[in-house]
Amino acid sequence: MILVNGLPSEYVRAFDRGLMYGDGVFRSLLVRAGHPLCWPRHYDKLYADCAALNIVCPPETILAVEMAQLLAEAPDCVVKVIVTRGESQRGYAIPEHMEPTHILMATPAPQYPASYLTEGVRLHLCSTRLGIQPQLAGIKHLNRLENVLARREWSNSEIAEGLMLDIGGNVIEGTMSNLFLLKGKTLHTPDLVRCGVAGVQRERIMDLAGRLGMAVRVENLPLARIYDADEVVLCNSVFGVWQVRELAGKTWPAGKLAALLRNLLDDDCH
Amino acid sequence: MILVNGLPSEYVRAFDRGLMYGDGVFRSLLVRAGHPLCWPRHYDKLYADCAALNIVCPPETILAVEMAQLLAEAPDCVVKVIVTRGESQRGYAIPEHMEPTHILMATPAPQYPASYLTEGVRLHLCSTRLGIQPQLAGIKHLNRLENVLARREWSNSEIAEGLMLDIGGNVIEGTMSNLFLLKGKTLHTPDLVRCGVAGVQRERIMDLAGRLGMAVRVENLPLARIYDADEVVLCNSVFGVWQVRELAGKTWPAGKLAALLRNLLDDDCH
Repeated sequence: MILVNGLPSEYVRAFDRGLMYGDGVFRSLLVRAGHPLCWPRHYDKLYADCAALNIVCPPETILAVEMAQLLAEAPDCVVKVIVTRGESQRGYAIPEHMEPTHILMATPAPQYPASYLTEGVRLHLCSTRLGIQPQLAGIKHLNRLENVLARREWSNSEIAEGLMLDIGGNVIEGTMSNLFLLKGKTLHTPDLVRCGVAGVQRERIMDLAGRLGMAVRVENLPLARIYDADEVVLCNSVFGVWQVRELAGKTWPAGKLAALLRNLLDDDCH
Repeated sequence: MILVNGLPSEYVRAFDRGLMYGDGVFRSLLVRAGHPLCWPRHYDKLYADCAALNIVCPPETILAVEMAQLLAEAPDCVVKVIVTRGESQRGYAIPEHMEPTHILMATPAPQYPASYLTEGVRLHLCSTRLGIQPQLAGIKHLNRLENVLARREWSNSEIAEGLMLDIGGNVIEGTMSNLFLLKGKTLHTPDLVRCGVAGVQRERIMDLAGRLGMAVRVENLPLARIYDADEVVLCNSVFGVWQVRELAGKTWPAGKLAALLRNLLDDDCH
């Protein structure tokens, strides 16, 4: 089921700037038994991303009502929320009065192999690099061709995700996930001020890591730092946390971090 | 009027990857008395841009028939042609069999002040920089948030266009146009291998400049090279060629280049 501006529809206007320019933002979040996990966090991020592009985000109360309507029919799913700047004539200039478009889509939750949680995952090292663009960094906007190109690089179904570097060679993220590495008692995660998407799950892990007695450092991480890590994990709001077991020939033994983080995140979820 | 996959419609599917990821390309071209100017060139560029993203471009014969249908109702307009990768489920992975979406839109030709042609234009120097992304450079794809942000920087209607630099400080293009500068007998235009859109009008000028006895050099152009130019012009397929008369306090006297190029382009048009 899809709600476009609150009404059931499978269509958006052809002149919507979301289509014409990718002029909008989105969220994907897991729904369990009718409950959208961490919805307040997701709404905050949606709002912040809209604000960064000067798009007026629909009020939380409106989205919550529509979400409830959507989830009555699809209690276990992934909800995708898209907010675009709305419809305008051809041309980049933004008219003074815009009516943003918001779209809620219930989609089937992806069925990953159980081994991704229990044993960890293999990563592809993407040759597609992320361009440096500080003005858009961190925002989950609709300009996602880099991710599309990166995801095209592998079709082997035994590979769960692709690791993306920026054009300077720093590790940034997975095509659909953020990354942490553990070295000693410290979690390290890439700085996302020049590219990448700062996801909600990453933010939650940064907030909660103290409970595991771990410090968190946000910094530039050249690829060598990944290979040198005790453990590497990926996270997003749909699959949770996966341990990385293999990347470009390097393997890691089974570790405890992914399960620890999963428990922590599950306990905290609201 | 809008044709979506050949049928009159004002809507596209919400799951179209053009909306979800900006996963597509487009063209904007001028139509005079029912004749889409330089259509073969535009089709070639559309095809090349699709190929660069591994999207199957609709055959020229199909688009030409639909174009004729569109222009029967709108003989003087700007046609926008969008080709997206088509519809898929949520997720960056591309299913094996995609049916690309193609959209033809007739939109009103913009009414620029006559003085833009006769006297030239003022430019805003954009603070929004273009990120470096060689894999997408040159392609007129649907990931255009940088252009949207740059165009938001001015609302003064006396400013015709904004000049964009890359993050390294090289001049790249206008928000909706390409740029040439004249120094002596040589035209210089920015190298677009790391960012920017390589437009059809730019390509035509490069092909035709020899007829004016001018060499063309494609190279990195730091901003200082613009200020040092004898003449600076902008071009695109809708407005043709404009002389730049003012940029950030620097002014240029009226020159002949813009009119020379316009005549050349008009003679060559088919």
